Amino acid sequence: MQKDIKIVLIETSHPGNIGAAARAMKTMGLTKLVLVSPKIFPSADATAMASGAEDILDQAQVVETLDEALQDCQLILGTSARNRYLDWPMLTPKQAAVTVAEQSNIPIAILFGRERTGLTNAELQRCHYHITIPSDPNFSSLNIASAVQVIAYELYSAEPVVSKTEQYEFASEQEVERFYQHLEQTLIKIGFLNPAQPKFLMLRLRRLFQRAQLQQQEVNILRGICRAAQEGKDHGN
Amino acid sequence: MQKDIKIVLIETSHPGNIGAAARAMKTMGLTKLVLVSPKIFPSADATAMASGAEDILDQAQVVETLDEALQDCQLILGTSARNRYLDWPMLTPKQAAVTVAEQSNIPIAILFGRERTGLTNAELQRCHYHITIPSDPNFSSLNIASAVQVIAYELYSAEPVVSKTEQYEFASEQEVERFYQHLEQTLIKIGFLNPAQPKFLMLRLRRLFQRAQLQQQEVNILRGICRAAQEGKDHGN
Repeated sequence: MQKDIKIVLIETSHPGNIGAAARAMKTMGLTKLVLVSPKIFPSADATAMASGAEDILDQAQVVETLDEALQDCQLILGTSARNRYLDWPMLTPKQAAVTVAEQSNIPIAILFGRERTGLTNAELQRCHYHITIPSDPNFSSLNIASAVQVIAYELYSAEPVVSKTEQYEFASEQEVERFYQHLEQTLIKIGFLNPAQPKFLMLRLRRLFQRAQLQQQEVNILRGICRAAQEGKDHGN
Repeated sequence: MQKDIKIVLIETSHPGNIGAAARAMKTMGLTKLVLVSPKIFPSADATAMASGAEDILDQAQVVETLDEALQDCQLILGTSARNRYLDWPMLTPKQAAVTVAEQSNIPIAILFGRERTGLTNAELQRCHYHITIPSDPNFSSLNIASAVQVIAYELYSAEPVVSKTEQYEFASEQEVERFYQHLEQTLIKIGFLNPAQPKFLMLRLRRLFQRAQLQQQEVNILRGICRAAQEGKDHGN
């Protein structure tokens, strides 16, 4: 596997799970582990469960915020036990593996949430796709390291494909977030978004643009449109 | 999953792994756990790792010998990190899932060996097929519960499932075309698009939105934004 894939574990409670996840990664050739505010790390429990994958733990990047973890990432996938009200593009692990295989060598992050509560809606909204592992609806709670294992296994098993996207340069997470801020300001300025009653407008627009996986050039165009729309409104005021 | 499948763990050393395996099974609708000479069982560690799958542990059958575990089984699959000198029929987890799905409702056993040494050759020779999980040749040692998770996941995924994907109401071709016209007029009005020199602007925006496969609701939002932007510009003129 030559892809640049980070496994990002958010606020993991049990250090044993971090070690087990590192082992699961290494069996499938993944090496980049990022820990966002782990409760306890490093830890003897993590090392014990790594069981041969201590090198993954040693190289793990520990950060305070998801922002730091996602810097420069161009494709973000988040694992979720179910599609909540968000109605986001959903992939099975197999579909996710195909999606990843189709990318050129862009930085990719796969997010795994807290043991009890998973990813927050705000975290899920930063993803291009959600991955749901098919499971018994009566008991769908996979251990986090088991979830890492299944997804890493599918990534490893995916057939190599000719990249469909080689010629495009995807926008970084930061640039896309700046665009959303710019868009929101613009919509307020032109009177389309009422900040006192935002409803789900930005959520819906995020969903649309995340689905499209914005390219750098497109972000430039969209921000140019925002600037032009704001200027129009400035003249009007 | 309606198949009669036993998960058989042989001489497991760490009771935590038994609990984690029970949890992995339950997430994929498997309920029959057989333990052949477990080192420590029952155990608080097993219960802790089961984390909601204690019922699987409570119902687990504990036996002394593999003979007892395999009584009445008609199809036996054994997991193995590699095909040793035996040169046995080998299946990937996906192929194993298809093989199981093709059976009528016969009793099936899937064997998982010891943490360090796996299944013995004598045990492997009792199997109809061996299953090898594809993995990095430099580090192919999956945790036993992770191996149970991957194989149970493939068994579960092989079953026909009702699609969970909700029906989106996609915008019609005509509505999308009207949006593009509206967008173009708006971009001209706000001074972002020069009709004398349009370059590839509309083409690029089309490519973006076509990729996203616009929904009806999204087209309504986008046209609302166009209207608001034009009004701002009207006031400006």
